Amino acid sequence: MAYLNENYLKLQAGYLFPEIARRVRDFCEANSEATKRLIRCGIGDVTEPLPRVVIDAMKRAVSELGNRETFRGYGPEQGYEFLRSTIAQHDYRDRQIDIADDEIFVSDGSKCDCGYVLDILGDQNKVAVPDPVYPVYVDTNVMAGHSGAAKSDGSYEGILYLPCTAENGFVPEPPKEHVDLVYLCFPNNPTGAVASREQLSRWIDYAREHESLLLFDAAYEAYISEREIPHSIFEIPGARECAVELRSFSKSGGFTGVRCGFTVMPKSVVGRTDSGERLPLHPLWHRRWSTKANSVSYPVQRGAEALYSSEGRQQVRALIEHYMHNAKILRDACEKIDMKVFGGTNAPYIWVKTPGGLTSWETFDRILRELNVVITPGSGFGAQGEGYFRISAFNSRDNVEEVARRLQGWA
Amino acid sequence: MAYLNENYLKLQAGYLFPEIARRVRDFCEANSEATKRLIRCGIGDVTEPLPRVVIDAMKRAVSELGNRETFRGYGPEQGYEFLRSTIAQHDYRDRQIDIADDEIFVSDGSKCDCGYVLDILGDQNKVAVPDPVYPVYVDTNVMAGHSGAAKSDGSYEGILYLPCTAENGFVPEPPKEHVDLVYLCFPNNPTGAVASREQLSRWIDYAREHESLLLFDAAYEAYISEREIPHSIFEIPGARECAVELRSFSKSGGFTGVRCGFTVMPKSVVGRTDSGERLPLHPLWHRRWSTKANSVSYPVQRGAEALYSSEGRQQVRALIEHYMHNAKILRDACEKIDMKVFGGTNAPYIWVKTPGGLTSWETFDRILRELNVVITPGSGFGAQGEGYFRISAFNSRDNVEEVARRLQGWA
Repeated sequence: MAYLNENYLKLQAGYLFPEIARRVRDFCEANSEATKRLIRCGIGDVTEPLPRVVIDAMKRAVSELGNRETFRGYGPEQGYEFLRSTIAQHDYRDRQIDIADDEIFVSDGSKCDCGYVLDILGDQNKVAVPDPVYPVYVDTNVMAGHSGAAKSDGSYEGILYLPCTAENGFVPEPPKEHVDLVYLCFPNNPTGAVASREQLSRWIDYAREHESLLLFDAAYEAYISEREIPHSIFEIPGARECAVELRSFSKSGGFTGVRCGFTVMPKSVVGRTDSGERLPLHPLWHRRWSTKANSVSYPVQRGAEALYSSEGRQQVRALIEHYMHNAKILRDACEKIDMKVFGGTNAPYIWVKTPGGLTSWETFDRILRELNVVITPGSGFGAQGEGYFRISAFNSRDNVEEVARRLQGWA
Repeated sequence: MAYLNENYLKLQAGYLFPEIARRVRDFCEANSEATKRLIRCGIGDVTEPLPRVVIDAMKRAVSELGNRETFRGYGPEQGYEFLRSTIAQHDYRDRQIDIADDEIFVSDGSKCDCGYVLDILGDQNKVAVPDPVYPVYVDTNVMAGHSGAAKSDGSYEGILYLPCTAENGFVPEPPKEHVDLVYLCFPNNPTGAVASREQLSRWIDYAREHESLLLFDAAYEAYISEREIPHSIFEIPGARECAVELRSFSKSGGFTGVRCGFTVMPKSVVGRTDSGERLPLHPLWHRRWSTKANSVSYPVQRGAEALYSSEGRQQVRALIEHYMHNAKILRDACEKIDMKVFGGTNAPYIWVKTPGGLTSWETFDRILRELNVVITPGSGFGAQGEGYFRISAFNSRDNVEEVARRLQGWA
């Protein structure tokens, strides 16, 4: 009989968001009146329509596929040149960051890239993740056998957790011990924290000293409002030797249902074999895409390209401003009732201390029941998230203003 | 330093199709006149425009994403219910095959699914593949560490190859020894062979006796013209206990650049743990999708759904007839010059014995140089493919007729 991958059996309960969906469904089935008032600020999913330029570009691309002369079949497995060069130029070279077109790999989203990238890495790697953290970093490592068993607090043996607390401003310092692989995400999901140039430089120093690989998730870079905060890890000298960056159009262009993102894999990043040989990761990554994928739907790649036109950039800017004004309204509403609030100024997430010593899930259930609002329990992101919850600013203005009203006098 | 996945270093040269692309590029750079005459019958990539219903459905879906009221963000990770139920109904239940909606998992293509499915399987599995074979089955197993080193003929230690020869009609019988995981593909890429109900039944008997898992690739089922040939492995009694089926819209709906396919994972298929416990694979597969993906672009899923409307089915039928008439022209042309020809009646591929004892790559180079036609060398699909080449019928009628003309008097 075929053996199954037993690492899957180590995984805790459900992945966070399906678990939230289940609780909300149960609540709604029992409370049909409250259901009508339900406002979802849980999952970080965009709500506003796609930018006009994307709609137009995707429709044009679909039309091309309807004519023999302009029809396209298999595209290059790493993404079309038109998109790779547009990304490298606008997101990197225009900002004085040295990234070549063929260091950009187009994918169907950052969530997917988190799993894909482990394909080319060895199973011996010692992994460090922030805590709290986007659950996908941890779960994909558990599935790949990079952890031991789950502990009672939901964390896993064999993974080093880097506590992100109010005391360190939710930006962990590099650890004392050696790790091979480090995940960092700034602007951060779930805490909304950002890392300064100095803080990121200390991580690059650590990575170069320990010859570690940094997986830098910059999915929320478009939300940075403060000028001095880096948008890319490659703004830090030395990063080309030790970092891989993940980016997404999900939250900038509203592509959560359209599916497109990319990784930046510099040719200068190396990995080691068991015998100590050092080899660049870029050829392995290229081979992974050639062998295992056929890239992303052509109309989707044209849609992503359109985000970089001058009109496209204006439309993205308007989307970001919409969500960030929501974030301000939610922050202010929480502060007005004396809740301790973090994030929400360079990120679309507000990270809030639970009231009265409640646990995260108790707070989730109470806010669902009393305010008919869905938030995300902080503990779902890791042990250090216990005692916090996340409010997502991805919503309509009406809904956000209504949530602010319901928060008045609560807690 | 981060360890890399050393299994990648076992992989032979390039993946077949990039290698063909390289040789064609080199030839074209050296022969600008011949380049104008070049006709590509190599890679199995469709050439005809998308069916009208797909264009319309995708544009409608893109429009929906442009309005707040109809906008959709993250969809269900396993695919939208509208598509899963349409597939299960039309491809299975309407044909008296018992498959539930939630046994259908929508993906970005069969090539991708080949890699994904190994995520949930153990690394101890003994794997068998046909020879010749679609290279992705082998390469994904090599990458996952399920093989030893490469041998001089391009095959890998530790993998059991099932010879498909003219003697067995390119349909291998089950082996004497035990294997855990078997790949089968009918109609076959590259040989164009199909398996009868009796032949598939012997495989199901083997799988049930050995408690093996069959990965059945039915990407070309739409090309079956003979009534008695099974379209799905689930037409064979007992398959629900031991088989997983891969399907694709690439070759039926012309989706090679649109990207959509699916797997059928019956809830009754089990795998084993090291300690001998038997557990269904379905929850692991469901979890894989929840954690590692966000399904396929919404407009793409609407496009795939449209293929099942009565208009859509007519338009698909017209596409298939176009390519299969091409196949007949190519078969006839090869036979006219006394070449030994297989396939091309239930599949869009013609499998041809090389003339005069040439190797596959020698024939590739000769046909490229003398006829300015690109074919695929049989040895690229495995050691047993040596001495054969594949002609793809995916082309315009004009090109196919021109290839037939050039073949006159050749060899």
